[in-house]
Amino acid sequence: MPETVIQYLLNRLKQLGIRDIFGVPGDYAFPINDAICDDDELRWIGCCNELDAAYAADGYARIKGMSALSTTFGVGELSALCGIAGSYGEHNLVFHIVGMPNMPVQERHAIIHHTLGNGEFGLFMEMATPVVCAKTMLTPENCIHEIERVIAAALENHRPVYIAIPGNYVNENVSSSQAPAYVPVKSDPEALEEVVSAIINKLLEAKKACIMPGIFVDRFGFKDLTTAVVNASGLPYVTMAMDKAVLDETNPSYRGLYSGRLVNPEISEFVESCDCILAIGTILSDTNMGRFTAKLDESQIINVMPYDVHIGHADYTNIKMSDVLEELAKRLHKRTDVMGPVAKSPTAPEVNAGDPITADYLYASYAKFFKPDDIIIVDSGTSFYGLLPIFLPKGATFHNQTLWGAIGWATPASFGAALASPDRRVILITGEGSHQMTAQEIGQFYRYGLKPIIFVLNNHGYLIERMLSQRLDYYYNDLPQWQYHKLPEVFGCDGWMTRKAITCGDLDKIMAELDNTKTGAYVEIVTPEMSVPPIMKVIHNNL
Amino acid sequence: MPETVIQYLLNRLKQLGIRDIFGVPGDYAFPINDAICDDDELRWIGCCNELDAAYAADGYARIKGMSALSTTFGVGELSALCGIAGSYGEHNLVFHIVGMPNMPVQERHAIIHHTLGNGEFGLFMEMATPVVCAKTMLTPENCIHEIERVIAAALENHRPVYIAIPGNYVNENVSSSQAPAYVPVKSDPEALEEVVSAIINKLLEAKKACIMPGIFVDRFGFKDLTTAVVNASGLPYVTMAMDKAVLDETNPSYRGLYSGRLVNPEISEFVESCDCILAIGTILSDTNMGRFTAKLDESQIINVMPYDVHIGHADYTNIKMSDVLEELAKRLHKRTDVMGPVAKSPTAPEVNAGDPITADYLYASYAKFFKPDDIIIVDSGTSFYGLLPIFLPKGATFHNQTLWGAIGWATPASFGAALASPDRRVILITGEGSHQMTAQEIGQFYRYGLKPIIFVLNNHGYLIERMLSQRLDYYYNDLPQWQYHKLPEVFGCDGWMTRKAITCGDLDKIMAELDNTKTGAYVEIVTPEMSVPPIMKVIHNNL
Repeated sequence: MPETVIQYLLNRLKQLGIRDIFGVPGDYAFPINDAICDDDELRWIGCCNELDAAYAADGYARIKGMSALSTTFGVGELSALCGIAGSYGEHNLVFHIVGMPNMPVQERHAIIHHTLGNGEFGLFMEMATPVVCAKTMLTPENCIHEIERVIAAALENHRPVYIAIPGNYVNENVSSSQAPAYVPVKSDPEALEEVVSAIINKLLEAKKACIMPGIFVDRFGFKDLTTAVVNASGLPYVTMAMDKAVLDETNPSYRGLYSGRLVNPEISEFVESCDCILAIGTILSDTNMGRFTAKLDESQIINVMPYDVHIGHADYTNIKMSDVLEELAKRLHKRTDVMGPVAKSPTAPEVNAGDPITADYLYASYAKFFKPDDIIIVDSGTSFYGLLPIFLPKGATFHNQTLWGAIGWATPASFGAALASPDRRVILITGEGSHQMTAQEIGQFYRYGLKPIIFVLNNHGYLIERMLSQRLDYYYNDLPQWQYHKLPEVFGCDGWMTRKAITCGDLDKIMAELDNTKTGAYVEIVTPEMSVPPIMKVIHNNL
Repeated sequence: MPETVIQYLLNRLKQLGIRDIFGVPGDYAFPINDAICDDDELRWIGCCNELDAAYAADGYARIKGMSALSTTFGVGELSALCGIAGSYGEHNLVFHIVGMPNMPVQERHAIIHHTLGNGEFGLFMEMATPVVCAKTMLTPENCIHEIERVIAAALENHRPVYIAIPGNYVNENVSSSQAPAYVPVKSDPEALEEVVSAIINKLLEAKKACIMPGIFVDRFGFKDLTTAVVNASGLPYVTMAMDKAVLDETNPSYRGLYSGRLVNPEISEFVESCDCILAIGTILSDTNMGRFTAKLDESQIINVMPYDVHIGHADYTNIKMSDVLEELAKRLHKRTDVMGPVAKSPTAPEVNAGDPITADYLYASYAKFFKPDDIIIVDSGTSFYGLLPIFLPKGATFHNQTLWGAIGWATPASFGAALASPDRRVILITGEGSHQMTAQEIGQFYRYGLKPIIFVLNNHGYLIERMLSQRLDYYYNDLPQWQYHKLPEVFGCDGWMTRKAITCGDLDKIMAELDNTKTGAYVEIVTPEMSVPPIMKVIHNNL
């Protein structure tokens, strides 16, 4: 039987390993929604709204390497756009499948719902252009060629692609079998050798050197290879904020977080005194560079990126990260003379059971609570800065939207991550300002039989924003006061463990309970309004 | 004292009557957020997320004629985009003010948070282009010129505009006072006379004629003038779906809803037998045309649009609606020979107190419940189709996103509308699929001292989607099961009246209570899963 357009697409996604498709249904997307539900190997994962679905898809892609999202024309796809932009910026691969009105309707420029009333149908695809690495509108004729083209782009860039299908084409048979030959990027052999030799020599000749593995190690799946490079080099490594836990933090070569002047002065002094730093897929963004307080000399940095390498001010293109790493793992000379200091772990202050929960106590409690292989998902609030300096157990991973930084991302993203790895412990750590954006997805965990541990910090407002402002008391940072710990019940999470912690004693007791709970858990943690982790104090004092 | 860029903007918005600015704060927008909070005549209205804030601004603009929204760069503005697009499509004026990174940061293409990591800063403004009628990035030099230009465009088009301000410019003094002379559109006098004479003659000579006032009558503020035209004509009028209650439905000339073959066959027969229809600002969209079942002969339609007039196939441009209506109100010959039938009001079926609440009983109950001057805000679900045929009391207005049709719009929009008119009764009618998208804004009503009446229809899924599909049981139309009536408590609405109605007796009792309640009220109404209003049955049967 010949394949239809949607069958070809879904079959290719399944071949790539996709089994779940996030989204919100809608009438222009019905033929797509139907096909997904009719496919026994696929599961439709309905979210409360499209932005949440996009965030969930992003979270899923972080665990599984890719994900799929389906929305309807106009209202659906535009609602998802901020989430897609985040996946683009942070290099997560999301196949965004959009159901368009039937082609005859488009051709006669009909005034129909979910349009701007101007008879234009190409505008929304155009709007998505900056936040996808490829886009297409499928027809029965171009289907194979276009799907193969956007899949190749998606895999190469590890970023979202946009696939629109007019409703009347969805179930048409594909009418051409011509697929483009997908030629994967290959390293230029001479350039590769030049680069690898240069790196080996620079690391050998440096008085002091270190390694700085970055986010692309995770995104392009080179954790093992990079660990091999680290081990072969004998050098210590540090990570920046976005790169936390891309390699195991229990590796004896790991020294801790490097974040400019914000924290760990001993690490900063060490890193900035190195005359050679081997960065592997790091992004030198404001947050990574400790709000640009990092003092790195570009001429002493090597950065191995997915398809190019920068050595000092020289750029080498057409060189694959995997090829460079493989060569380095084989050929690096092991050094045993560079040690570097190890950052101090935050320690818990002495408290009484009835004391309010301070930031210092809270983050030290998290540090004790984490276990090997935890998936920790954190919104871009003060919690992120509180958690950064903690050394994580083996196999634990840490996820944050450090570049895009859309608050609210973490709640749906942790749902996506939990769906992608139902056998691992997923821990969501968010603040109430972030949580209010997307809290309704709590109900999804229960609906799909997942058992996350959710911590919501309630400190009466957008605390990170207060700290990023000269004046702490602008009322735009106030929030409506919710009863957070009652949310799971209302959202249908029957039998969950729900708690509210106000004192250190409460928190200790709840943390102990959590170790044994067999259900999803939701903990509201109340702290004094201005209790912040040390990094936030430094940031505020240096505004 | 010289004015700063933000002072100039805020002063101009205040001169236009704006007192509230919706939004979510963010670091790139802090200077804007600060200025708003520092201004004693302005109020910052924080929403849980940016899409909700955009919807709230849309609702506010529907009541006050315009509104303002402020978001931060990237994450904020993109999240609001679906809401802005809806305001564009449905002609609501929203000033969208975006806080951008400082200009020196932009100029050195820094890799900073809330960007895509590519050093590009103009992409998001570009993405907004299709959904705004003007856009600008302010500098101290262009400030006055650009603000005046986009205000003129906003007022003329009654659509959103996009105003970005780099952070370091916000508090700079404006450095030029040169404002463009704003020349309002004027009608071409000869074309105006030709059009008015033609309309007068056509209405006089028609065997049968009617008037069809449309949404632009509301958007451009011509309710009184259009009523005067109706009264001068002596002709009956009908409305289409998007146009419901743009004129009082108690006017003796009102005949009811015209929606093609979907409902009121006597009205359809009358309208389609007219040899002249005077449409005033109507949009001939799919929903308005009863899913294109309306059989209108374009050669017999006159449509007076905001700045042009269509008579049959002839288009006349540069003619203002207000000028045409003023002339018609003065010069039309009154006809008393065209009557036309009056549509039947839906009537309540006989029930017992213990019976489940059917759609027929529900919509008849709403009909009895509505009072003069109610503001009724309805999401695009089955409730919309249930409410359309009801004749509304004097002064009551009906709001729906009939063209854009983004579900979830109504909850925040009703918050915006309530804030815009705290002395009128605001009634939100939504279904649970829509409500789950944006339910968190419930808490805002309480926070700002507003007392809406909220009805949430719980029928276990996206009922309208089931009805728009050949197969009723696709599982993508299922939803997580929430305890809706407990939401207000969790969102902090202390002391609200919250109820759950399962039987007709429950509903009767609650409706009676609502007449006397002094607080906000939230009613979850459970109906059988497939109980739909008559129009939905017709739609489903004709798929």
